Amino acid sequence: MILLLKRQCQLQQIQALVSRLEFMGFTTAIIEQGSHPAIAILSGLEGDVMTEHFIEFPEVEKVLPFTNKYKLVGRDVKNTKTVINIKGVEIGGKDLAIMAGPCAIESEQQIDSIAEAVKAKGANILRGGAFKPRTSPYDFQGLGESGLRFLQEAAQRHGLLCVSEVMDVNDVACAEKYVDILQIGSRNMHNFALLKAVGRSKRPVLLKRGLCATYHEFLLAAEYIMSEGNPNVIFCERGIRTFETYTRNTLDLAAVPVIQALSHLPIIVDPSHGTGIRHLVAPMATAAIALKADGLMVEVHTDPDKSLSDAKQTISPAMFGELMQTVNAIHAVCGSAQCAVE
Amino acid sequence: MILLLKRQCQLQQIQALVSRLEFMGFTTAIIEQGSHPAIAILSGLEGDVMTEHFIEFPEVEKVLPFTNKYKLVGRDVKNTKTVINIKGVEIGGKDLAIMAGPCAIESEQQIDSIAEAVKAKGANILRGGAFKPRTSPYDFQGLGESGLRFLQEAAQRHGLLCVSEVMDVNDVACAEKYVDILQIGSRNMHNFALLKAVGRSKRPVLLKRGLCATYHEFLLAAEYIMSEGNPNVIFCERGIRTFETYTRNTLDLAAVPVIQALSHLPIIVDPSHGTGIRHLVAPMATAAIALKADGLMVEVHTDPDKSLSDAKQTISPAMFGELMQTVNAIHAVCGSAQCAVE
Amino acid sequence: MILLLKRQCQLQQIQALVSRLEFMGFTTAIIEQGSHPAIAILSGLEGDVMTEHFIEFPEVEKVLPFTNKYKLVGRDVKNTKTVINIKGVEIGGKDLAIMAGPCAIESEQQIDSIAEAVKAKGANILRGGAFKPRTSPYDFQGLGESGLRFLQEAAQRHGLLCVSEVMDVNDVACAEKYVDILQIGSRNMHNFALLKAVGRSKRPVLLKRGLCATYHEFLLAAEYIMSEGNPNVIFCERGIRTFETYTRNTLDLAAVPVIQALSHLPIIVDPSHGTGIRHLVAPMATAAIALKADGLMVEVHTDPDKSLSDAKQTISPAMFGELMQTVNAIHAVCGSAQCAVE
Amino acid sequence: MILLLKRQCQLQQIQALVSRLEFMGFTTAIIEQGSHPAIAILSGLEGDVMTEHFIEFPEVEKVLPFTNKYKLVGRDVKNTKTVINIKGVEIGGKDLAIMAGPCAIESEQQIDSIAEAVKAKGANILRGGAFKPRTSPYDFQGLGESGLRFLQEAAQRHGLLCVSEVMDVNDVACAEKYVDILQIGSRNMHNFALLKAVGRSKRPVLLKRGLCATYHEFLLAAEYIMSEGNPNVIFCERGIRTFETYTRNTLDLAAVPVIQALSHLPIIVDPSHGTGIRHLVAPMATAAIALKADGLMVEVHTDPDKSLSDAKQTISPAMFGELMQTVNAIHAVCGSAQCAVE
Repeated sequence: MILLLKRQCQLQQIQALVSRLEFMGFTTAIIEQGSHPAIAILSGLEGDVMTEHFIEFPEVEKVLPFTNKYKLVGRDVKNTKTVINIKGVEIGGKDLAIMAGPCAIESEQQIDSIAEAVKAKGANILRGGAFKPRTSPYDFQGLGESGLRFLQEAAQRHGLLCVSEVMDVNDVACAEKYVDILQIGSRNMHNFALLKAVGRSKRPVLLKRGLCATYHEFLLAAEYIMSEGNPNVIFCERGIRTFETYTRNTLDLAAVPVIQALSHLPIIVDPSHGTGIRHLVAPMATAAIALKADGLMVEVHTDPDKSLSDAKQTISPAMFGELMQTVNAIHAVCGSAQCAVE
Repeated sequence: MILLLKRQCQLQQIQALVSRLEFMGFTTAIIEQGSHPAIAILSGLEGDVMTEHFIEFPEVEKVLPFTNKYKLVGRDVKNTKTVINIKGVEIGGKDLAIMAGPCAIESEQQIDSIAEAVKAKGANILRGGAFKPRTSPYDFQGLGESGLRFLQEAAQRHGLLCVSEVMDVNDVACAEKYVDILQIGSRNMHNFALLKAVGRSKRPVLLKRGLCATYHEFLLAAEYIMSEGNPNVIFCERGIRTFETYTRNTLDLAAVPVIQALSHLPIIVDPSHGTGIRHLVAPMATAAIALKADGLMVEVHTDPDKSLSDAKQTISPAMFGELMQTVNAIHAVCGSAQCAVE
Repeated sequence: MILLLKRQCQLQQIQALVSRLEFMGFTTAIIEQGSHPAIAILSGLEGDVMTEHFIEFPEVEKVLPFTNKYKLVGRDVKNTKTVINIKGVEIGGKDLAIMAGPCAIESEQQIDSIAEAVKAKGANILRGGAFKPRTSPYDFQGLGESGLRFLQEAAQRHGLLCVSEVMDVNDVACAEKYVDILQIGSRNMHNFALLKAVGRSKRPVLLKRGLCATYHEFLLAAEYIMSEGNPNVIFCERGIRTFETYTRNTLDLAAVPVIQALSHLPIIVDPSHGTGIRHLVAPMATAAIALKADGLMVEVHTDPDKSLSDAKQTISPAMFGELMQTVNAIHAVCGSAQCAVE
Repeated sequence: MILLLKRQCQLQQIQALVSRLEFMGFTTAIIEQGSHPAIAILSGLEGDVMTEHFIEFPEVEKVLPFTNKYKLVGRDVKNTKTVINIKGVEIGGKDLAIMAGPCAIESEQQIDSIAEAVKAKGANILRGGAFKPRTSPYDFQGLGESGLRFLQEAAQRHGLLCVSEVMDVNDVACAEKYVDILQIGSRNMHNFALLKAVGRSKRPVLLKRGLCATYHEFLLAAEYIMSEGNPNVIFCERGIRTFETYTRNTLDLAAVPVIQALSHLPIIVDPSHGTGIRHLVAPMATAAIALKADGLMVEVHTDPDKSLSDAKQTISPAMFGELMQTVNAIHAVCGSAQCAVE
């Protein structure tokens, strides 16, 4: 249920109403609805709660039912696209969020030289894994907190933001100290405890689509994060699992226009995991931008073949530079998704 | 096995050698290898046939083993991209092959008005089904031969080529009289008898990817056609079946760079069947062209909602016109796949 | 639409009514509905045909709408299970239909010795491919008509029925002369021209599920065959294509109870193609019989490792003998699906 | 690397050697290899560690390389099947582990009456969810710790063991106090932090297959648990996600013989989630037992239609009773997998 508030309502009044509703046992979230402020009632509606209970509050103009299962992530709740501003870098706006870097942070020197290289070619966010989800317990599991420190220092030194994956509820507090964006990996898209934990963080969250998650489940995973109070979620399409084995995954680019039609949140594309093959990274990145994706996540390494993980899908700074040229040319023609919404 | 012939060999000499080889029990095909003429030995190599048997022919410069399972469709057999010229329209060259029209031919008037509309917006090939593959035997099955006649007349009247699907070996001879390109639908990609039948035709063949066909199987289906003597095959990526049900299929755009890397044949994309949703057709078409696809196949109807089949994925001439504008803008930036190969 | 006829209607009256309806432009089929004779109107109902048009015929007791898309294969059209009697062997009844033999007929001697072996172990139907659907045009394509003759002679010599695949509309007439059951392979489940062709045959049809066909599509493929007049269709679950690559396919055993709940036609299981791995054939066959499948199709070769195709999934007569022992023990406990329906 | 120890080695000697190896920086596990005790070196082997370093220890008879990626779960590491004994109930032995109960624990009374009912029909382990993984954050999330207490009390009152899912690393300590078996749900099969956490528990772990996990990934998830020291892992096949939407999932019964061939650990089957349809639960349970699965997990509710979650796939105690009769009849014929291994 959505309480559409009168247009002139002040933030203070809204917050007072929220307090009263929470005291009555409802879970709520402050949202916007068209040009009106509004409050979404997320739970507590079981039993005989009626529209009449709410319409009597003087701040409330109208009571609207939820028209779908997305109370917070849906387009019907918020018409304008969400733009996430992190230290001046806007994600979901006119510019592209270009996240680039190695699969795993291997050493202080490695991450620094890669940071320098990707910055030079046009990246604005440095990626790098410190906690690595590995199918086998005997594969390299990442450098942990010291890796995060190397990442942060390299990013700051070269004027980049940084993003890294958290795999465990107990790593969130640690990761928050170092990174600008917390990443939830594909294998954890259904890890509801972790989704809630990052939902309580102040950091924006990059949410990767699960290996076999439908669009509906992808949106509801974001709903988990938002329902805990974190409004800054960035979707990332990174390929789904199909019968085709030539590519590592099948990059489902239709996710870009579908998610942008269903949700106000930004979506980026990861062509590295989405294909698993070096020579497909640039073409698929280009196609993603032609689809008005809000950005890219690309695995780049100064010596791709010696990369400790994902070597086959990792590109060199030179290849990344060429990719950025085509991407920028396409972006100039197609623009961002901002306009597509109207 | 490939017999690389001496560069100065004349067509007459090559044909004489082919006759001799066929007389000896081998199946062969004349191919090109780099700048050399060459003959592929397709079968008859069982038992103790040795390289020495061939090297003695004076026309033969070198005997090469097949390096993979694609004897005719593979890049290693022919380095230059195949350009199919049909009455002046080139498929696989610098320009785009834009096939547009209704799912099914419904009447003489319907196909004529659609032909006029799509021609005006930039299509060069008219599509329309006369024999319809329908999951249920009780659904509309198409107008048959009279439909093909309406298609041909509409195409000629408006200066378009035309393409239509054949579903049965016994329909090939009939269809050849009317259409410029024979289409093999997804459901028949593994219908080997039909593949061989169109392989014996003089008409180019548009081969749609099967619902759950791997790239490897897709290439081998083209190999079936080529091994019967028809060198003009056009691949068409049209979506695969996955767990996602929001879209009708998952359009696997990575097929474009993958097939272009493995084969010298052109590939186009069908975003209508690939998504099944009207508002996704234009974005996915744009992405396909950004990936240097050689063309598009799009379902267009002057009254989409009244389309006898596939109404949900069919767009109006106006939407098609907008699509073409973006597609042309992207094509101007990205160019065709010609250059990508070097 | 179903015309429920009066119980006392004689066959002659029913046939006269059918003639009249067909003359009026309807396509029809004689079916049974509970204990009543009935006529299904398959097509011709477009426009303003009304229930009243039919209720006036004196033979008609009631006009029923179709409750689903299966006019002929559905349980709601015919409550009692279809039992197909071929020269005394009943398929769909109390006994099991055990189809065994090589993937491909390789020689007269080979098929004869396998026929002898599988008969001795309890098979009642000999399988063997004469027209082979091969992914590559360069793989062994089968012996053709002479293979069918070897198959028929071996079957007759050892007191077995025989079944073989047809791949082309033009092969049906030839195959009918030799085999008791015409098989439609997975790759042709959507080959509607072929489905119609075997629908006009007098021979029962073994219909294999397509690689990525849903239950709904599987049922409608049988509907295609039945709508042409052939009431004797046997379903065969043979595995679907999924992301798992360890097994050749994922054998979807739930198809057995699902299809038996939705249709009155028998269903058997092919654990050889369903798994692709020799040591899984017997366990999965056992599970199929525990699920009350009406039979099995198993690839058996006297020298499995030298089998010209499908060697990895082919078992020896000795393994087949052990399989039959367990299968018979399970069948004695579980019984056939006959009872399950009530 | 595996250090095969001399047959006469005493446990004390082995433990002393382990301490030394761990002091040297290796991670190890005590395993058995044929009839020999052995120590697996799990990590620390990077760099220039050589076979010679180990062969000098007097306890070591031979140094073996790992032949595959499963250092602890594989058949090659341990030939005899693992039997997990929990308070007298053996899982992986001759008897079946029958886990039955509601999807979610709803109240003290509900779980008690279901416990009584399933015990009477032959279950030996009570299931019930206290922490529920729900796709939407607004669905019922379970009773938490008080649910676990109700579960434990109901189980003890009726002479049953109990199993419940943990979703968060931080819930493991709490759950251990109440349940006999910790369950890892499908959505967490790739939650490596959680796998490690239950790997450090003394409780056996029921590991459900991920929605799109391959057998290989399934085995490696168990490897994660075992590599932390917990040898008692029970696999559970519960259906995979495919294109088929009629059933909730596609129950991949081939997993039973495949996993039993590759691993010494027991495997059970969940036909409730595996099909999502009430009338398919009993047939698929029967098939699983015909395949020598080591047990079942079935959703049972005294009032299935009022079940707070998974109502459609939940069966009544009466249906469960009939299921058990068939299952026991089949088990009497087929026996357990013990013998199958020889």
